[in-house]
Amino acid sequence: MQRIPFAEVQATLATILRGLGFREPRDEACARLFAETTCDGVYSHGLNRFPRFVATIRNGCVDPLAEPQVRVRFGAMERWDGQRGPGNLNAHAAMARAIALSHENGIACIAIANTNHWMRGGTYGWQAADSSVIGICWTNTMPNVPPWGGVEPVIGNNPLVIAVPRARGHVVLDMAMSQFSYGALESYRRRNELLPVEGGFDAEGKLTRNPGAIEQTQRLLPTGFWKGSGLAMVLDTVAAMMSLGNATCNIANDPLRETALSQVFVAMDPRTLGDAEQMERIADEVVRSLENSRPAEEGKPVRYPGENTLRLREQNRRLGLPVDERVWAEICAL
Amino acid sequence: MQRIPFAEVQATLATILRGLGFREPRDEACARLFAETTCDGVYSHGLNRFPRFVATIRNGCVDPLAEPQVRVRFGAMERWDGQRGPGNLNAHAAMARAIALSHENGIACIAIANTNHWMRGGTYGWQAADSSVIGICWTNTMPNVPPWGGVEPVIGNNPLVIAVPRARGHVVLDMAMSQFSYGALESYRRRNELLPVEGGFDAEGKLTRNPGAIEQTQRLLPTGFWKGSGLAMVLDTVAAMMSLGNATCNIANDPLRETALSQVFVAMDPRTLGDAEQMERIADEVVRSLENSRPAEEGKPVRYPGENTLRLREQNRRLGLPVDERVWAEICAL
Repeated sequence: MQRIPFAEVQATLATILRGLGFREPRDEACARLFAETTCDGVYSHGLNRFPRFVATIRNGCVDPLAEPQVRVRFGAMERWDGQRGPGNLNAHAAMARAIALSHENGIACIAIANTNHWMRGGTYGWQAADSSVIGICWTNTMPNVPPWGGVEPVIGNNPLVIAVPRARGHVVLDMAMSQFSYGALESYRRRNELLPVEGGFDAEGKLTRNPGAIEQTQRLLPTGFWKGSGLAMVLDTVAAMMSLGNATCNIANDPLRETALSQVFVAMDPRTLGDAEQMERIADEVVRSLENSRPAEEGKPVRYPGENTLRLREQNRRLGLPVDERVWAEICAL
Repeated sequence: MQRIPFAEVQATLATILRGLGFREPRDEACARLFAETTCDGVYSHGLNRFPRFVATIRNGCVDPLAEPQVRVRFGAMERWDGQRGPGNLNAHAAMARAIALSHENGIACIAIANTNHWMRGGTYGWQAADSSVIGICWTNTMPNVPPWGGVEPVIGNNPLVIAVPRARGHVVLDMAMSQFSYGALESYRRRNELLPVEGGFDAEGKLTRNPGAIEQTQRLLPTGFWKGSGLAMVLDTVAAMMSLGNATCNIANDPLRETALSQVFVAMDPRTLGDAEQMERIADEVVRSLENSRPAEEGKPVRYPGENTLRLREQNRRLGLPVDERVWAEICAL
């Protein structure tokens, strides 16, 4: 593992993107979103994901020049076509528009069809919270999780993001609907570790903590069994209906051909309803109630979603982004 | 178990409510919501819950005459004060207003503070879907679940409801953020059964399927471990901030004193964005993709959220509502 300054990482990625057809300022913007993801400690969706992103540009899934277009406007709601542009730029533009519309309407929603993988979902939650609004967004994915009661992967792991602005550190939840991602299973397997809790089914149909056994059956466990299964299914339905885009059942089950996704971005501006100071106090109170509660393990205080991100962000900004040597060599050779 | 016609159940409850100070037509409306909940098969929150509801009227938590008031209007968003009126009537009024506002704005949101337990959350999802709009709502609750990494119940089980309209049967998800409710634990214990999956911690801090052991420690497992814990916390924060109401940490940890809750009701009108027929096809496709997928157990097809409700509703309307004799005797003596 080596550490490379944020600016150098961003510049390197931007140069590669320009070579692939990106134009200014979208090359820098797209590169920045990848660098920020690694900086925030979500390594699976930052630099480690960049080679796969480049592969989807080269195979035509992602069109570097395509920009999202508005199809229908109605009040506080818009339906967009992502035109298969870069997923992170599309998502960032959609959330930016939802934020702007929420200032005028209190709440606003952008539904976008025909977009690509948004990489780290939490990015758009932090974006909303940095603008002092509550952000709620979700995406569908290719079919990669069996529904509860089924054995075939026909639902997506459809990440859901909810972000709450707070001066002393935003609260940002970013959760997929499988208990573990394939990326997480691989990490545990490489370290020869069992999962901390059951994460899927083995070849005999039994719940297991063995990551390799789950990779073989492809029977990931939905978050909370029947609950996450149902939640993934309704989020998919809402995203596809509102955007008039694909549902998971119409998306190719192949990470390199996963495209034309449907996403929803909701922003709520709490200041339109009144007392911003009181709202800040409320958010602080909730955080404090967790901090002050008795931990299960001495010395390991209960954390709120997003808390760890701030610590890692500061550290990685200061020391440089931690990058796997092989990944960095692969990127530099792209 | 006896069966009593829907109309007789509703009339009986309405008479009791009139005796407690409810006026027309709110006596009938409140009674109907309880009867519909039992009719839909959610027995824990229908008639079985009615005696406790009456107790909270008698002890002053619920004011039968109080009606919700609008505090602030801004675009597609409103902040309400529930004035500690009956929770189900307040929630129904809030969702009705969100639905109406969504027709004008595409999306709309009502945040209500100072309300009471909404009984079955799914009610307001069905209400939205029956009006052909997507409904998303959630409530906070008293602290009744330990956060992930903690041992004290400082977060609520904060149910989340997402409903999608569909001509051949709405999709309605109604999930609390604990894997099992206390009501469910009690049912399993009375039947001398283990839970189907781990539902909490025993006295030694180990995950267990023994319902009685969890009732004793009060360490319910959040849905999906750290995920449901985080989701409960952000839903609570958003509800309290937007409504300027209580967060879970300010709500009494006592089922008979649980009051002044905060709730959020969002409605999205998909028809404002265009092609209603195409939307219907999309919802049907998602449902079909589950129906056609291979079940884990032969003869037990994968179900979508809400599917079972329609079957039970039809059956209970036809045969009469199934009522526990002791519960019915208790209600008739109220």
